[in-house]
Amino acid sequence: MAGVKSKQFFYRNTVKWNGERKGTLSSLEKPDMEIATPPEFKGHRGVWTPEDLLVASVNSCIMTTFLYYVRKEHLDFTGYESNAEGVLEKVDNAFMISHISVKPIVTIRDREDTDRTKRIIEMSGRNCLISESVKSKVEVIAEIKIG
Amino acid sequence: MAGVKSKQFFYRNTVKWNGERKGTLSSLEKPDMEIATPPEFKGHRGVWTPEDLLVASVNSCIMTTFLYYVRKEHLDFTGYESNAEGVLEKVDNAFMISHISVKPIVTIRDREDTDRTKRIIEMSGRNCLISESVKSKVEVIAEIKIG
Repeated sequence: MAGVKSKQFFYRNTVKWNGERKGTLSSLEKPDMEIATPPEFKGHRGVWTPEDLLVASVNSCIMTTFLYYVRKEHLDFTGYESNAEGVLEKVDNAFMISHISVKPIVTIRDREDTDRTKRIIEMSGRNCLISESVKSKVEVIAEIKIG
Repeated sequence: MAGVKSKQFFYRNTVKWNGERKGTLSSLEKPDMEIATPPEFKGHRGVWTPEDLLVASVNSCIMTTFLYYVRKEHLDFTGYESNAEGVLEKVDNAFMISHISVKPIVTIRDREDTDRTKRIIEMSGRNCLISESVKSKVEVIAEIKIG
């Protein structure tokens, strides 16, 4: 219907500088996090960085999208673990996260579900709303285990 | 020089499902975080979500970029706090974070630095490498305080 807008959802947070190249990230009801410039840009070790958060956003969104589909499709799975790697480099003379590779390892009970699981992971990578929101090329390479 | 690639930097993390619609996010040397589907999509309250992480990534990147410029330009500032809000909605029939508004409040000592501070914040919003990496429209509205 013309003129009808989809529902909107809002995500709010605050960062507050607390010295050097560090700050505190907060959001209502959620635990505070320390964030910082990464060590390779004169920041700090062992602290989550903006670059990490972008890669984590994609990695975790593919998992939550997978959890949505497995419930919808009644897939019997027992484990999901996913390693992601984002590459920061210059593209057209500006630094950006150009590429994010996501490697989920999914454990299912029944070997016969292998192809269906692969298809669900593929859908999760394609339809994840964070993949839709980033310019980075997102690549999903799944591994299926039985157990 | 043709064929010369810029330096690359890598950001790696792992998500592991731990029941319901939740998981643990980890990265070498950094504190573990719980992440989950947000409550509006049948997830959990009080836990960081993929949507939050994307908005936090932009918000914190603008701060770390600001911290880079203030050192370079010797700006005497005493405080930085920034509220960000991301809007999730359907665009071309797919959900995405369409828009992120970032509102930094910067406190400076010298009123004469007001215009320079505004210019530095504007540069930080424009040149932040996460702004470069997202499709979301990023808008930065700064407020300068003296103190």
